[in-house]
Amino acid sequence: MKKLFLPLLMLAVAVPAFCQEALRAVPNTVSPQVNDDKSVTFRLYAPSARDVRVTGDFLPPRIIDTPDGESEIPGVADMVRNEQGVWEYTSPVLAPELYNYSFMVDSLMVRDPSNVYMVRDIGTVTNIFLIDGGNASLYDVKDVPHGSVTRLWYDSPSLGMKRRMSVYTPAGYETGEGRYPVLYLLHGMGGDEEAWLALGRASQILDNLIAQGKAEPMIVVMTNGNASQEAAPGESHYGMIPPSIQLPKTMDGSFEMAFPEVVDFVDKTFRTKADKSHRAIAGLSMGGFHSCHISKEFPDMFDYVGLFSAAINPHRPTDSPIYKDMGGKLKRQFSKNPRLYWIAIGEKDFLYDENRKFRELLDAGGFPYTYVESRGGHIWRNWRTYLSEFVPKLFK
Amino acid sequence: MKKLFLPLLMLAVAVPAFCQEALRAVPNTVSPQVNDDKSVTFRLYAPSARDVRVTGDFLPPRIIDTPDGESEIPGVADMVRNEQGVWEYTSPVLAPELYNYSFMVDSLMVRDPSNVYMVRDIGTVTNIFLIDGGNASLYDVKDVPHGSVTRLWYDSPSLGMKRRMSVYTPAGYETGEGRYPVLYLLHGMGGDEEAWLALGRASQILDNLIAQGKAEPMIVVMTNGNASQEAAPGESHYGMIPPSIQLPKTMDGSFEMAFPEVVDFVDKTFRTKADKSHRAIAGLSMGGFHSCHISKEFPDMFDYVGLFSAAINPHRPTDSPIYKDMGGKLKRQFSKNPRLYWIAIGEKDFLYDENRKFRELLDAGGFPYTYVESRGGHIWRNWRTYLSEFVPKLFK
Repeated sequence: MKKLFLPLLMLAVAVPAFCQEALRAVPNTVSPQVNDDKSVTFRLYAPSARDVRVTGDFLPPRIIDTPDGESEIPGVADMVRNEQGVWEYTSPVLAPELYNYSFMVDSLMVRDPSNVYMVRDIGTVTNIFLIDGGNASLYDVKDVPHGSVTRLWYDSPSLGMKRRMSVYTPAGYETGEGRYPVLYLLHGMGGDEEAWLALGRASQILDNLIAQGKAEPMIVVMTNGNASQEAAPGESHYGMIPPSIQLPKTMDGSFEMAFPEVVDFVDKTFRTKADKSHRAIAGLSMGGFHSCHISKEFPDMFDYVGLFSAAINPHRPTDSPIYKDMGGKLKRQFSKNPRLYWIAIGEKDFLYDENRKFRELLDAGGFPYTYVESRGGHIWRNWRTYLSEFVPKLFK
Repeated sequence: MKKLFLPLLMLAVAVPAFCQEALRAVPNTVSPQVNDDKSVTFRLYAPSARDVRVTGDFLPPRIIDTPDGESEIPGVADMVRNEQGVWEYTSPVLAPELYNYSFMVDSLMVRDPSNVYMVRDIGTVTNIFLIDGGNASLYDVKDVPHGSVTRLWYDSPSLGMKRRMSVYTPAGYETGEGRYPVLYLLHGMGGDEEAWLALGRASQILDNLIAQGKAEPMIVVMTNGNASQEAAPGESHYGMIPPSIQLPKTMDGSFEMAFPEVVDFVDKTFRTKADKSHRAIAGLSMGGFHSCHISKEFPDMFDYVGLFSAAINPHRPTDSPIYKDMGGKLKRQFSKNPRLYWIAIGEKDFLYDENRKFRELLDAGGFPYTYVESRGGHIWRNWRTYLSEFVPKLFK
């Protein structure tokens, strides 16, 4: 009797009182359930709801009209209520990928209470699930040696603040003595130093590529690319404010000009190979824009450059000298023979034309680069793939 | 025209397509809004809902009958719908604290879509907000030097696996040369190496106490106390499985016996002061139980012991030698004069009687300890307070 009783007692107390009602009332709902055939069953207990649907990027997208033309939004599927009040939907067989989803209960978008796994993309939190296999097996935590991830602060005199960064060090870093090359990996607009870890699965991709012998062990530095912001939302003394995509000092040259402070701090703080041939810089969208402009402004700093769905032009009025004399600076950069200049973009990306014009500029100058064109648009699915393809090309 | 257009375009693309519908349809709802008088206004846009309430630990608790007797669960308050379909509730003036809450929409418990700040407690995710002031000002990110937080893996031959831990190093650690004392800080049943950071606000408490000169700069090591588990849910190769409170090897002595491996790894990996007078061990609930048994099994390891709402007895059938000869081992431990043996518990804690009997045992042996009795029960609010009180007593 006591054996049965005590675990229950512990459960009732250790689980926050918060969910005790739910624990008592809810039928056993597993959700999401990845089935053997790689279809996925979603379940939500909502006996008094009138209409429950699931939406996410695992469903075929819908095309909607917007003031800017046609736009794709995630598909929606109806869920069906059983006699216990559990709504259920089973997807078709899904290709390997990291997917996100939410439920729509009588039009209210809600998270799946059975799934604690979620990510924040700017101001939106969605549930996630992973279908293992293919490239997506790189996004999974495998039984391989794991690197460390550190959130730490550095001083930026030129931006006038302490700033936060995330740093991946490969397995063996803490217990060894060796020095490592460094990839600086930059986020897009609205992102921060958490984005590549949470949405980009950067530490899993690095762990797996290194364990498979496909990538050199390296340090990955994920900065905060918003020059007016000390740290990700909730991590600075500005408190738990709503994340914003509209921040001061965006695309005004401040972040690029301050970048040598980052490199200097990293070289002083970590066991790096502190020279051009052991440094790479890459980023998505605004982070690709930063990578482009930082690498040409400081042409002796990086031998490897990756532009993932990059913006090229500032998209804001600015007089920053960083963005002046593009042709002359590219000429200087390429005269120093960077080992890899890698450009990737999706055929539906809203920055596609901007990238095409940039490639024409590179072609006209005779500047060598590698170009990868993928399907789809300006989405994390592409950026995870680009990172997976870019990292094996570094430091070899 | 272009100036107006481009930020909007960037917004539409950079924000995941996921929330575009919501962006278009939802009136401007700020939630939670901490008002000047420290009341809080909650808002939810749910035009087709019939009944919306807010529940959380900021409301007076309700008493309910359970098979185990009366139990407290968080209070509930009705929200009122306005003509736009936004439901709203304003709380009374609240005392400083880190609070949690959820909405109940037609009985379905949902998160606040306007608030990206949430914590996971075992398998339940709730939104949080902070009322600054008093002890709660220690939980806030202030404009002070910040320590680093690293998630890293170590080898545990005795448990037969690699295991993950979280480590706080104080501001200045990376750029300095000095050695630091170490606090080992252990979680409760159902928790993991993320619990003290997410729910306990350990890095904020340490940052603030150190900046105020109230605590010595120290390293804080947060292990995973589940001896069958490599890492927190989602961080091991077991994948994104639902968190469980019922794990093998719980309270069977395995974790305690393997603890010297943790200390050994930390002393080899970080710049520690590697002796008893510079080591503390403390934990909540099962972590307090672990702290009690580890510190008496290895009496030359820790000069400071903290039991926060600790279990004392295994609560499971076990033959582990760790739990045998309690009196003899305590006598041996106290013969070596630990500098601080600190016990704290809430007057309503379900482990209160167990702690009272333990204190009687200590009293009978003439073993000196400090005892703090607080209000309330087995809740994080108490554990944050206990940590805030315990840390300033260490290493002085």
